[in-house]
Amino acid sequence: MPLPSCWTQPLPPSDTHFCERARQRQHVLTKPRGSLGQLEDVAITLAGLQRTQHPQVDPVRIAVFAADHGVCAEGVSAYPQEVTAQMIANFASGGAAISVLARELGASLEVVNLGTVGDVPPLTDVRDEQIAAGTANLATTDAMTPGQLEQALASGDRAAARAADDGCRLFVGGDMGIGNTTSATAVACALLEQSPENLAGPGTGLDAAGVSRKCEVIARALARHGNNRDPLAVAASLGGFEIAALAGAILGSAARGIPVLVDGFIVSVAALVAVRQQPQLRQWLVFAHRSAEPGHQAVLDAMNARPLLDLGMRLGEGSGAAVAVPLLRSACALHNQMASFADAGVTDKNED
Amino acid sequence: MPLPSCWTQPLPPSDTHFCERARQRQHVLTKPRGSLGQLEDVAITLAGLQRTQHPQVDPVRIAVFAADHGVCAEGVSAYPQEVTAQMIANFASGGAAISVLARELGASLEVVNLGTVGDVPPLTDVRDEQIAAGTANLATTDAMTPGQLEQALASGDRAAARAADDGCRLFVGGDMGIGNTTSATAVACALLEQSPENLAGPGTGLDAAGVSRKCEVIARALARHGNNRDPLAVAASLGGFEIAALAGAILGSAARGIPVLVDGFIVSVAALVAVRQQPQLRQWLVFAHRSAEPGHQAVLDAMNARPLLDLGMRLGEGSGAAVAVPLLRSACALHNQMASFADAGVTDKNED
Repeated sequence: MPLPSCWTQPLPPSDTHFCERARQRQHVLTKPRGSLGQLEDVAITLAGLQRTQHPQVDPVRIAVFAADHGVCAEGVSAYPQEVTAQMIANFASGGAAISVLARELGASLEVVNLGTVGDVPPLTDVRDEQIAAGTANLATTDAMTPGQLEQALASGDRAAARAADDGCRLFVGGDMGIGNTTSATAVACALLEQSPENLAGPGTGLDAAGVSRKCEVIARALARHGNNRDPLAVAASLGGFEIAALAGAILGSAARGIPVLVDGFIVSVAALVAVRQQPQLRQWLVFAHRSAEPGHQAVLDAMNARPLLDLGMRLGEGSGAAVAVPLLRSACALHNQMASFADAGVTDKNED
Repeated sequence: MPLPSCWTQPLPPSDTHFCERARQRQHVLTKPRGSLGQLEDVAITLAGLQRTQHPQVDPVRIAVFAADHGVCAEGVSAYPQEVTAQMIANFASGGAAISVLARELGASLEVVNLGTVGDVPPLTDVRDEQIAAGTANLATTDAMTPGQLEQALASGDRAAARAADDGCRLFVGGDMGIGNTTSATAVACALLEQSPENLAGPGTGLDAAGVSRKCEVIARALARHGNNRDPLAVAASLGGFEIAALAGAILGSAARGIPVLVDGFIVSVAALVAVRQQPQLRQWLVFAHRSAEPGHQAVLDAMNARPLLDLGMRLGEGSGAAVAVPLLRSACALHNQMASFADAGVTDKNED
């Protein structure tokens, strides 16, 4: 199985003409210039990416990628591994955070199972794309084979293709996988040349001793992995199926002209893998929130990202991005519907 | 005209029983404890204030109070004073930021005109409650008489009564008034015993020389006003009709059991006036956003407030609060609709 074409082909650029028109429009709307802060930037960014005078984010697609992690054998999570499969069922039955948020938003929710240790009963609302019953233990061996990596990337790419086929104007990726902050932290350490002590955190709720053990496990993995910074090599060696699929989905969305609203730590690490492969991807990313997981800031900094929200969230599933979707809707509505000074007969400030 | 009764009568307290039930429920929902960050706090706060297991914010009432300021004679604003009346017409015709946001939210929008210099044509969607053609120049005399202050407070109180009559579960106040950052900064300086240099900012867009002049005007007003820290005396001496009305509306909402989502600088100063009069009001306030206006932080600190958003907004009209309404909706939906570990058959972390 080859790489999806978007991993090697140029991405479409943002359209500077539509960006500039959007910027000009923000200047004549009935408000002090710049007074909508980051909402102005979001509207301008989306106008350029969507090549339109009327940016909008609906329909929104939320896709949650779930998988297990062999590194759980090292005791790196506060929750047992069976929870991954249980949560997939919870997504399908509508009781998980992202299920509630998707319903409230009127966003379509896809759940993709890339491989769990626990059994997942056949669920009509879950796509069964299992690669293996979780990755191998990244502390002692490559998490996945090159073929498995390609399968995961392709699974994400297909999710992006479905979003494009359905006319979606915004893509939100989410993650579920007990142990995945260990994998994501290892990937971030390898790509950013950081030590685990700088990036590792409590994940779902480790105590200080647990974080210390997690650091030791990641350090062993990094020693085994060596100095290879190639993003695909790092993803195969230290990643997870869901992290690789997210990287594939994010790059696949951009390649198809769909802006991506990036969730917290896990999804940002997936985005970093993809940005390291294709730096032009960066302009397609809007960052939703700053996670309470301490390693997130370094990952955000590496992409020069300033998230919209900072609510102390650390749940995963794409929940932080889902909570930020209404901010993008507001930004678009204000941009598209506000009156100009001329239209409203309001006197503008004397400037320029 | 006497003060509305809520200025002297005890406010209803938050219900600790419902707070505790909400806190317990957050512990059993299918997520790591605390992983929804501030959204958990919001749900617990609203449950206690609304005395319910199922907090919700709809229907939402947004009320924008508009008035002119005599201090504009000192040249303290980047915009001419006629803009206040023009913007009232823009609110009514649906082209202002708050009009767009209210429509998108499905929130009812009230506009209350407390007194402008420019003529406002009769508009069916604007309540004409004009007290005078703007306040007096606070740099040289009291901004309003005691009778005018009581009229403004009562106007706000009536807006709260209408929200209660309409069954609203959340109150959002907004402001419009060219020159009102000068008035609000003067009020904040008087209540917080700060110098204008510490709190004054560009408002709608003053340059450095303009901010400097604004500081000088406020310093004159504070010297005239003296050391009286009584909140009502400060409001009459240095306030604006819309600021006083907002204080009345905020306190009136709490007195009627309606939580208040507090917008940026102007509304926070109005809230501070009311909190200084009735400290128990503080628990009824959820803070929506941190304004780019520099004085806002000190006002927030004085109420120990940590806002939900920090997007660099500084538009007024209640726009920052409106943008935050979906966060409260998300917090309530997650609290009310997520499955528990037991319901979903998901294994909980071993703790407690």
